[in-house]
Amino acid sequence: MSSKAVPDSHDYEPDESDVWRAHRARRARAERGAWWTVGRRVSLLRWLVTLGIGACTGLTAMLVTLSTGALTRLKFGAVRGVMEREGGPGVRALCAFCAFNVAYVAIANAMVVIEPLCAGSGIPDIKCFLNGINLLGVVKPKALVCKVVGIMFAVAGGLPAGKEGPMVHSGAVIAATISQGDACCSDSSSSQFQEFRNDREKRDFVASGAAAGVAAAFGAPIGGVLFSLEEGASFWSTRLTWRAFFCAMVTVFTLYVVKSSENLWGQQDLAKMFSFGEFGELTMGHGNYSVWELSLFVLLGCMGGLVELHCQLHAPLVLLGERDTPDRSNVLPHTEYNEVASLFFTDADTAIRQLFHFSSGALFLFWLPYTAMACITYGVAVPSGLFVPSLLSGAALGRLCGHLLHKLAGGNGALFADSGTYALIGAAAALGGMARMTISLTVILLEATGDMQYVLPLMLTLMAARWTGNVFNEGLYDIHIRLKRLPFLEDELPALAAKGEVTAGQIMTTTVKCLRPIERVGYVYDALRNTEHDCFPVVDTQTGNVLMGTVLRKCLCVLLQRRHFSPNRGYSRGERPVTFETLEKDYPRYPTIQEITIANDDRQSWLDLRPYISTAPYVIDESASMARTYRLFRTLGLRHLCVVDHRNRLVGIITRTDLSAVQLAHRLVCGGQSLADALLGVIWEAR
Amino acid sequence: MSSKAVPDSHDYEPDESDVWRAHRARRARAERGAWWTVGRRVSLLRWLVTLGIGACTGLTAMLVTLSTGALTRLKFGAVRGVMEREGGPGVRALCAFCAFNVAYVAIANAMVVIEPLCAGSGIPDIKCFLNGINLLGVVKPKALVCKVVGIMFAVAGGLPAGKEGPMVHSGAVIAATISQGDACCSDSSSSQFQEFRNDREKRDFVASGAAAGVAAAFGAPIGGVLFSLEEGASFWSTRLTWRAFFCAMVTVFTLYVVKSSENLWGQQDLAKMFSFGEFGELTMGHGNYSVWELSLFVLLGCMGGLVELHCQLHAPLVLLGERDTPDRSNVLPHTEYNEVASLFFTDADTAIRQLFHFSSGALFLFWLPYTAMACITYGVAVPSGLFVPSLLSGAALGRLCGHLLHKLAGGNGALFADSGTYALIGAAAALGGMARMTISLTVILLEATGDMQYVLPLMLTLMAARWTGNVFNEGLYDIHIRLKRLPFLEDELPALAAKGEVTAGQIMTTTVKCLRPIERVGYVYDALRNTEHDCFPVVDTQTGNVLMGTVLRKCLCVLLQRRHFSPNRGYSRGERPVTFETLEKDYPRYPTIQEITIANDDRQSWLDLRPYISTAPYVIDESASMARTYRLFRTLGLRHLCVVDHRNRLVGIITRTDLSAVQLAHRLVCGGQSLADALLGVIWEAR
Repeated sequence: MSSKAVPDSHDYEPDESDVWRAHRARRARAERGAWWTVGRRVSLLRWLVTLGIGACTGLTAMLVTLSTGALTRLKFGAVRGVMEREGGPGVRALCAFCAFNVAYVAIANAMVVIEPLCAGSGIPDIKCFLNGINLLGVVKPKALVCKVVGIMFAVAGGLPAGKEGPMVHSGAVIAATISQGDACCSDSSSSQFQEFRNDREKRDFVASGAAAGVAAAFGAPIGGVLFSLEEGASFWSTRLTWRAFFCAMVTVFTLYVVKSSENLWGQQDLAKMFSFGEFGELTMGHGNYSVWELSLFVLLGCMGGLVELHCQLHAPLVLLGERDTPDRSNVLPHTEYNEVASLFFTDADTAIRQLFHFSSGALFLFWLPYTAMACITYGVAVPSGLFVPSLLSGAALGRLCGHLLHKLAGGNGALFADSGTYALIGAAAALGGMARMTISLTVILLEATGDMQYVLPLMLTLMAARWTGNVFNEGLYDIHIRLKRLPFLEDELPALAAKGEVTAGQIMTTTVKCLRPIERVGYVYDALRNTEHDCFPVVDTQTGNVLMGTVLRKCLCVLLQRRHFSPNRGYSRGERPVTFETLEKDYPRYPTIQEITIANDDRQSWLDLRPYISTAPYVIDESASMARTYRLFRTLGLRHLCVVDHRNRLVGIITRTDLSAVQLAHRLVCGGQSLADALLGVIWEAR
Repeated sequence: MSSKAVPDSHDYEPDESDVWRAHRARRARAERGAWWTVGRRVSLLRWLVTLGIGACTGLTAMLVTLSTGALTRLKFGAVRGVMEREGGPGVRALCAFCAFNVAYVAIANAMVVIEPLCAGSGIPDIKCFLNGINLLGVVKPKALVCKVVGIMFAVAGGLPAGKEGPMVHSGAVIAATISQGDACCSDSSSSQFQEFRNDREKRDFVASGAAAGVAAAFGAPIGGVLFSLEEGASFWSTRLTWRAFFCAMVTVFTLYVVKSSENLWGQQDLAKMFSFGEFGELTMGHGNYSVWELSLFVLLGCMGGLVELHCQLHAPLVLLGERDTPDRSNVLPHTEYNEVASLFFTDADTAIRQLFHFSSGALFLFWLPYTAMACITYGVAVPSGLFVPSLLSGAALGRLCGHLLHKLAGGNGALFADSGTYALIGAAAALGGMARMTISLTVILLEATGDMQYVLPLMLTLMAARWTGNVFNEGLYDIHIRLKRLPFLEDELPALAAKGEVTAGQIMTTTVKCLRPIERVGYVYDALRNTEHDCFPVVDTQTGNVLMGTVLRKCLCVLLQRRHFSPNRGYSRGERPVTFETLEKDYPRYPTIQEITIANDDRQSWLDLRPYISTAPYVIDESASMARTYRLFRTLGLRHLCVVDHRNRLVGIITRTDLSAVQLAHRLVCGGQSLADALLGVIWEAR
């Protein structure tokens, strides 16, 4: 993937410089006694934006579903036309079918060529974003358009791809786009949305958007909130829970209203886009399963963990290899009433409903090729979710087991739960083995099933699948994050660093590019030019590098661009410092150092950084344990942390990259080994 | 309440002293290359303990339910006996009934006399505990026994008290007791559980226990995990989510197995202790309600918020007033077939099931006195939950509204959803107005209902109830926490301090009792004796109070008790420092300073604190904003934070108490006002 992480972008919170304080104080003075303060305005606006995000996500989901349906109908209509002209199935019909599929998939592939970030499900990217990594372009409108168009064609083209993962990504992009308002189109300094233009607000909106995406994809508003909660838990607050909750609710409500007014999908359940169909009819009395069957469910869970493991080993291999438009030669020939074919030649949503209630033994014929195809598809360069394919293959496997058990029991069919239940459990096992999500997955499945009696079996199965899988490797999303080499911080310290007594001083980078409070323009320019750091510590060299604070790249660039320096040391030009509004007006497209040129004469001028220094950066003592350092990083969502001695003298800096498992392994264990070896070591270690 | 908060107990994490580092390094050396390391042993043990907690919580829940049933049967059996002897209801039967109730309630009351902490629901206490406040005795076995016995008699005595809140408390105590192992009974230094003996592990287990408690009370394992997540979100990790999940699952499983093997409660749903009964029979087609009815649900939510407001204003008043055993004179006279009576004279669980499916207009007669009684009961000194009473009164109100609407609609009954749905919505409204919980409450109600179609109405109602309530005051649990004057940290900074530009330097305490790295024994003794602080900063007075680290009260007490000091300055006795094991062996009952006496001769001796200093305490610059300070406190679960200038010289200290809303208001706004005024101001402010 061509995604590129910003190595250490600015902090999650606004910095604490004099300029910022002056800005806040000025506003507080202006608002003294006022009822309609900026705080209240922003609070109201935040709810309105959340409402908008929810509604738009709902509408996008509708659009995707309807368009996919239309495209599929178009395809099958054309094929049927050919068949009618030929008087039955034949080579021509097959050719037409293949041609349609190839064309559709080619369009989906083209979208990825236009915007490489829209390949795959997008869930790993959103996970990273919520974790505090600014992936360039991952929440840009372009990614949304490509993703939506791509997934429509990929699903309509018959690929075993789900639209659920992409929906989550879409929700996130919608959130980022709406909340950043007119940043792209108009003069942003006068914008109503100015208060939302910082990383923290953006991330909060994206969390809500992701929740809305899950809600739209599965009709599972609570599951959506839990998904965001589980992935972005380190920055979570009750207030944000409410907003995500509200956002997901608006999405579901939008879907509900649109559907009930239009009655577009007559036969489907009202409140759900995604449904397993009705289980109620199948239940025999209260308990649809007996206590002892729970052990069978656990076994099925372990199986799911193992099967998915196989897929995962396969998927990354494909991912690492070449990425071409897939050859559609593995489409099976079919007759009109073949049960296997009726599973293959329909969209996945219908297949799921059929599968859970399907009473044929031909499942195996479906399961094996479908699973293989799903593995390949995920590695292929089209937008595609893994959720529905995992679910489908798991359900097929589960149903197979159910059938087998019923056969074993002979006439005594009541001994075992019905095969529909086994299909559900199988689906849970496969999903659990794939995503390794906890509570959010349980709730999503429960909400999709609509039947609370499955709480216990689902929980057991998911835990068994997770544990079995964890013996061998990590979840697929995590593997993808590792393959992209993003500095993702797990919520626990990698075991490698927790062992023994590693201190902050041992893992920090000691070659730090520091600035002085009043610094030569040339030196600043070179520092910006020659490094990629987004933050520079400011030290007082006269007192032995006592840390004065930090200053951000964006701020330095603005100062240089505005030529806010003077030939004399000490701030003699009598100019007032640049205001907060001026510094922030270009968010998020601050001037880059490449756009700025400095004349040779100016290089000897002095830049007074003091008003722009964030005077209270988070620091840690060099003797602090790794556990404490990691915790500070992870819970506060930091990007960098200054390491000081007990006199507050700067001795090093720790960035997110220093903490990523790969880097830790490299520094602590591998010494001179290659990164690939270290990677393997870490994956082995992380079990 | 007589509960007393430890003002600033030791940190959430183990400290980072040389002694601790030596301990860790020694263990790492001993285990080099070993497979069966302490880490693995502890990890396995942790899961086993979690299993035990889940099972015990489930069994306790069974015990409470069965005993309550037995006690109730005993009561009604006796009354029926009297009636049979008299040939019908009469004064004697009423007297017998009252006598039983008074006796039961007196026993419940006696439990509170024995252990004052077991009064009320215990949920505010558990919230505080998860928030990082060490309430003395709140998780001790004594509280468990009293609570369990008390709640059995309170419920059997006919008080409108729920056993759900107390179950949560019980789960938490069970967790604390099991995880701390044999701390109370045997020599703890050789214990298997030694690794769990710190505040962090204990808190994690308590979070799991609380989840198990909710799971047992409502048959809602997911709701339980979410409850813990919502209340203790600042210290949460994925791994802990799994453990809480597992714990809740074991509890539900225990209940399931016990019930299905014994078949004790024939007519009840298998997996549920708490149930609303079956809604399935009542539904007409798919959607049990129409879209436009959602607006009615929102209205009902607002109403719930207002009604509960009334109760809440009442409850604290009672709470602040006298606490006597309640007079049972408000028991209504009854005839055998009176519907109102059949609601009053039954246990709450049955009443709930009846209420949701009850087709009588006599609800109002039930609702008004029941609600009033519930308000009084919560203020009374017996163990009692508020959950079921709120739910019952809300359901009655909702059903009333439903009936009213059906009357208004005349013959066209299909215009509105059935009254059962309205009862559910009413219950949600009342609960939402009372507890102001978000997502956990929705999930608990959904799991109890067992029907996913109610997601949207429940969410809407809960949000409406919360918002309506928040206009006027806080949730009842929060009000209780405030009344107890505990330094509970909300997850957002109080609005008062967020306004304008308050810095850490402005709210810190500047009169800090500091120690030197090598300090006179007499000085240390006096410092311990004259303050209640649990942590003392150590500063280097020769360099102008540069902060060297912090040292804990428990450690100083152990050193003094073991007379680990020497007459000469500088550590000349050649003794090795006290080991980590020695320091920690008495957890959690470290020697107190009152147990220690120091001879006058020893007062001039020197205590070398250097090996015991935590050299990497969290610090913050005095210029840091309140927002940043609060965030550091809240997300890391700190108890105290040293404030330093940019040379790392100590200038003050901030404790949890300094940050509590009351204290902030006092310092920033009220100046010389009384605490009561400040309290009112804060409650007003916190709306």
